[in-house]
Amino acid sequence: MSALRNGKTLLFPNRPVIAGWASTVGKKEADGPLADWFDLKMNDSHFGETTWEKAESRMQRMTLGSLLKKTGRKTGDVDVVFSGDLLNQCIGSTFALRATGLPVLGLYGACSTMAEALLLSAAAVNADYCTRAVAMTSSHFASSERQYRFPLGYGGQRTPTAQWTVTGCGAALVAKEGAGPVITAATPGAIADKGIRDANNMGAAMAFAAWQTIRTHLDGIGLGPEAFDAIVTGDLGWLGHQIVAELFAREGVRLEGRYFDCGKMIYDRERQDVHCGGSGCGCSAAVLCSKLLGEMKRGNWKRILFCGTGALLSPVSVQQKESIPAICHAVQIECQ
Amino acid sequence: MSALRNGKTLLFPNRPVIAGWASTVGKKEADGPLADWFDLKMNDSHFGETTWEKAESRMQRMTLGSLLKKTGRKTGDVDVVFSGDLLNQCIGSTFALRATGLPVLGLYGACSTMAEALLLSAAAVNADYCTRAVAMTSSHFASSERQYRFPLGYGGQRTPTAQWTVTGCGAALVAKEGAGPVITAATPGAIADKGIRDANNMGAAMAFAAWQTIRTHLDGIGLGPEAFDAIVTGDLGWLGHQIVAELFAREGVRLEGRYFDCGKMIYDRERQDVHCGGSGCGCSAAVLCSKLLGEMKRGNWKRILFCGTGALLSPVSVQQKESIPAICHAVQIECQ
Repeated sequence: MSALRNGKTLLFPNRPVIAGWASTVGKKEADGPLADWFDLKMNDSHFGETTWEKAESRMQRMTLGSLLKKTGRKTGDVDVVFSGDLLNQCIGSTFALRATGLPVLGLYGACSTMAEALLLSAAAVNADYCTRAVAMTSSHFASSERQYRFPLGYGGQRTPTAQWTVTGCGAALVAKEGAGPVITAATPGAIADKGIRDANNMGAAMAFAAWQTIRTHLDGIGLGPEAFDAIVTGDLGWLGHQIVAELFAREGVRLEGRYFDCGKMIYDRERQDVHCGGSGCGCSAAVLCSKLLGEMKRGNWKRILFCGTGALLSPVSVQQKESIPAICHAVQIECQ
Repeated sequence: MSALRNGKTLLFPNRPVIAGWASTVGKKEADGPLADWFDLKMNDSHFGETTWEKAESRMQRMTLGSLLKKTGRKTGDVDVVFSGDLLNQCIGSTFALRATGLPVLGLYGACSTMAEALLLSAAAVNADYCTRAVAMTSSHFASSERQYRFPLGYGGQRTPTAQWTVTGCGAALVAKEGAGPVITAATPGAIADKGIRDANNMGAAMAFAAWQTIRTHLDGIGLGPEAFDAIVTGDLGWLGHQIVAELFAREGVRLEGRYFDCGKMIYDRERQDVHCGGSGCGCSAAVLCSKLLGEMKRGNWKRILFCGTGALLSPVSVQQKESIPAICHAVQIECQ
């Protein structure tokens, strides 16, 4: 065992601080149960732009601007940005950052991207490769629907297990010093593929990967789930959340009362017609950078495990009848 | 200045070792000037699969297998894989790795991905987050042509500045100990966009980003180009290579004799009809993991700067008349 890892879990003894966070969401998310937690709420799905992709990019720029403002920082105070999104070739992130002059390390982890970015930001700051890193990602309902399914104008029908891609963005500033929750450990996940082929049932496709990474992380730090006030998966939705709870129940571990999912938290299932819940990179990013870190700031939660979950499919892989590989990265966050 | 960075340049005092490397290429690359350097050469562009995407994924699996065999390692000896590719949602990499059980941190840096993966692998090993990391990426001429331009069957015409996407893959094992060249420093690049809109002139679009990162790196380590036996950009091709040389000449720095480009090296311009040269993630990855590291192993080169270059466009951004953002990450490699 090294000072910086145990098994597959990375340890961050220098306790990098999440010195600030910001979130932006669209109209539907602003109409949901977490409305009061978000920083920026846009009624205009186009964010003042002419295309959905430019809208998503603008949302990232707005969120980064909001993060810098909230933390009293200038663009040049940031050493590196870890970012990515769901759009082909990640143009949501790269076009958002092209005028900043900031070093960028681009990521693709599907909807696990926020956890991956947070893990790498914490690793970079903990090792003193940088003083301040930004972790950021987004998704947009309309750009995702067109790319993964159908253009909105087609009026496609949704199956009961389908999820609703969140229009949202989250950005976090991970720093060497400051006030805020600290990142103490993280586990990068392995890809799991249990043979599920239904692209409208991503919660089920991702559930095993989530269980696998949470189990690996708990083993790595030598604690049980009861050591956490909240274990929060990214976007498994109602079905995937239930499967993860059952996988733990099978090994005699009960998560009741401390296991949440961002895809369940962000919408009101009865009122908002989202079927199995929210999804998309922006789902876990916006929920992390609003309620999750907000509850920690208020002292309601002392330690959480943030578990970004990603379905690594593409429209082409679905057309080629491939099953859906999935991944989950876990990041442990604690109050100072 | 910290022990691990100077300005924007990361320093790796623990000197992570590139303990092994492997490359796989297609028929055209095997017919080029670097033929003798590659490990695996496939006459069958389908790599025994039924689709181009599955072929690319198979190429990555073959290359990883070759890397493990050459280094005498088992899959389980690897702690983490940093990988990505050009396919939408990076299915070349994720489908290649889904059965390995290895932790995966997915990247998207377009054709700069190999340098990004190498930078992050070295950072992880240097900080003792892991003992062995794999950096891997690929591209395939046919999957890229279909995705970015036209299906091959259309017989599209190529403009004089167009480049030829390399069918190739490179994988490197970065380890705490072992024989082989060491990674001593690296500079993550910032996005540069000089307003070029011609998707068939990516060399010109990327040249400024390459100059910017090389300049930042040289400033960060306090050395001039003459300290390097070779400064090698990823896939600028003939035109982009010339622009970078001119940008340095303007500041009075002459790179003659020590500045190369993987996109120029991999094909014979006279004989192979590739217009401006090779491109794609697999271009710099395959050239790094064959000739570049091979020349170092033979002692012909003592210190090189490997500069992965990426054009961060997408077919959608081109359709929306956007200019082409570009990025370059630089990795300094030295003999032990």
